[in-house]
Amino acid sequence: MIHNFIYDIPVRVYFGKGQIEGNLGKELKGFGKRVLLTYGGGSIKKSGLYDKVLKEIEEAGLELYELPGIEPNPRIDSVRKGAQMCKEHNIDVILAVGGGSTIDASKFMAAGACVEHDPWDFLDHSKRAPVTKALPIVDILTLSATGSEMDCGGVISNPVTNDKIGRMEFPMLPKVSFLDPTITYSVSPYQTACGAADILSHIFEVYFNMDQDMYMLDCFMEGLIKTIIKYAPIAIKEPENYEARANMMWASSWAINGFINGGKRQAWSCHPMEHELSAYYDITHGLGLAILTPRWMKYCLSEKTVSKYVQFATNVFGLDATMPSFQVAENAIALMEHFFFKTLGLKSTLSEIEIDSSNFATMAKKAVLGGTLKGFVPLKQEDVEKIYTMCL
Amino acid sequence: MIHNFIYDIPVRVYFGKGQIEGNLGKELKGFGKRVLLTYGGGSIKKSGLYDKVLKEIEEAGLELYELPGIEPNPRIDSVRKGAQMCKEHNIDVILAVGGGSTIDASKFMAAGACVEHDPWDFLDHSKRAPVTKALPIVDILTLSATGSEMDCGGVISNPVTNDKIGRMEFPMLPKVSFLDPTITYSVSPYQTACGAADILSHIFEVYFNMDQDMYMLDCFMEGLIKTIIKYAPIAIKEPENYEARANMMWASSWAINGFINGGKRQAWSCHPMEHELSAYYDITHGLGLAILTPRWMKYCLSEKTVSKYVQFATNVFGLDATMPSFQVAENAIALMEHFFFKTLGLKSTLSEIEIDSSNFATMAKKAVLGGTLKGFVPLKQEDVEKIYTMCL
Repeated sequence: MIHNFIYDIPVRVYFGKGQIEGNLGKELKGFGKRVLLTYGGGSIKKSGLYDKVLKEIEEAGLELYELPGIEPNPRIDSVRKGAQMCKEHNIDVILAVGGGSTIDASKFMAAGACVEHDPWDFLDHSKRAPVTKALPIVDILTLSATGSEMDCGGVISNPVTNDKIGRMEFPMLPKVSFLDPTITYSVSPYQTACGAADILSHIFEVYFNMDQDMYMLDCFMEGLIKTIIKYAPIAIKEPENYEARANMMWASSWAINGFINGGKRQAWSCHPMEHELSAYYDITHGLGLAILTPRWMKYCLSEKTVSKYVQFATNVFGLDATMPSFQVAENAIALMEHFFFKTLGLKSTLSEIEIDSSNFATMAKKAVLGGTLKGFVPLKQEDVEKIYTMCL
Repeated sequence: MIHNFIYDIPVRVYFGKGQIEGNLGKELKGFGKRVLLTYGGGSIKKSGLYDKVLKEIEEAGLELYELPGIEPNPRIDSVRKGAQMCKEHNIDVILAVGGGSTIDASKFMAAGACVEHDPWDFLDHSKRAPVTKALPIVDILTLSATGSEMDCGGVISNPVTNDKIGRMEFPMLPKVSFLDPTITYSVSPYQTACGAADILSHIFEVYFNMDQDMYMLDCFMEGLIKTIIKYAPIAIKEPENYEARANMMWASSWAINGFINGGKRQAWSCHPMEHELSAYYDITHGLGLAILTPRWMKYCLSEKTVSKYVQFATNVFGLDATMPSFQVAENAIALMEHFFFKTLGLKSTLSEIEIDSSNFATMAKKAVLGGTLKGFVPLKQEDVEKIYTMCL
């Protein structure tokens, strides 16, 4: 039986070139007067985006407060600072300008602004303080990857405890997202590749699944996968190819906004495994996912699961389904490896990025802290450790 | 260049079996106390759905007003009556239980309740009164076809003037839609077939298009088309096949909620042509579309458009793209004809449903009243008349 679900994604998305001008100020003003602008390392100043944003804020007669320096794999200290600023300055709306890190951090600032306790209490496994409200969030996306612009989740790191924990709560869903593909023209080939790996992983986590599929959503997922396989290499070679950037950007949102789930209840696999990697080694999330994904695919292949690989192989890569199933499955995995490590040019092993096995046991233990990863194939601590080892 | 667009579909959808119980009352109550229940010919009483709805309304302590008898191809008189009732009883929310007709009519009642003028003024080409607000609408869908449950449009007939006019306005978007596939178990094979034709036409109107495509959306559309081709015959043979009914129901919403447009600006072709047919002869919308669609596909095939047919033929039907393009295109049209008239078993000509050419000239003139149909291939009055004639 296809599971029941509730579909509810009330994010208004302005998609396309030049959508910020004339719309951003108006949208922000709808939420109030005092805006907290959050962003990362300052690349938005080089690109001219910062000036464009300031002009909109000024023309709308809004009061601006700024919190720059949100780090990749955003940290709880940034969240604490942001929440504090919101309270101090009585902020009405947070404007997050950046990729997933900035938007994720802003979500927990928005929630943190509405409570008295430490924002880490939202994430700490032993506390899990309720998220019942949050300030409104508007964002301008600068990187196609995490899908944070259209979902209500975020992942925050705590370097003190080596924790990297995610949470999804409806009040943290952005109200308005600006998706201008030309903003991603300046994204480097490496970050574009990591973003592609992240998007693909979001789809794989749902597609490779033992819950009953809804056919129309499987077709859509195969389309999203083909979209990334088609356009990521183009975006890497021709950074200013609008068609490529537009397809990647819109696909990144739809890979994880919840639509493709269609009621599937199953947990994810590669993401929790990767979160431990980047919690311990602060590597780029998408790189970690690229390294893990083909090994996870190999590890999960069995009599019981092979039919899903065959579906994937034939519908995405057009492989010949009349060959023996396991051969078809293995060929598809090989094609994914080729895509990640040759076409996208990402490093293919943990050894290459100087990660050895010394923390594998601890990381595997933490990855299953909430219990066995009940994904495509249920993974216990020893399974996770084996998959990490396959990545060496 | 891919056109800019705004994506904004804040409809909450409860999808699945038994979602009404415990959720409907709660959702209605969120909008107020006085509910106007609209429905059609009373099949909801036979099926037990009516009792289920009343129980929810009673348990939530709401006040119920009823407007039964909304006709297929809903008429402006029903809209007038509903708008009047909303004003008289100070209605807070309209609960539409039915297919597209009931929901469409309810949308214009909801808008009509907020103005002093005749609701026909919203539709009359010479008036087009603004739709700036509307009462909230909650619906329970009983037929997978029009997509009215997730879009802001509706089509209303005026038998006095032989007009059938559509309009889309954001305030008329339903707030909450209940999509329980088991409710459609009782939909007859004929209505299931007409629904399938309607859904396919919604996709074709966007897919066959000379604006630049967004690849990921083309993939999605091909998936939706394959979904209908796969499941409509199953739903006809096994009316209580949940998987088939669920896929058709969710596909019907996504065929027309605006997502697949992705900024395409082009007008539709078959729908305005069909609206004249059902305005003059009160035939089922989906049947009219089924008869028109393959003729329209033939009429539009040319050197300029053939590549789109080849894409369709190969990605939807898996036809061999190495054959001559026109042959591939014609084979795909033949497969669609076979699907509509053999697999779905719909009548294939206007003659068979006792429509002759006597009104073709007037209907064609009305179809292009707003100007040439700027669709896939622009259609003038004489083109429309020729297509009608091809349907005899």
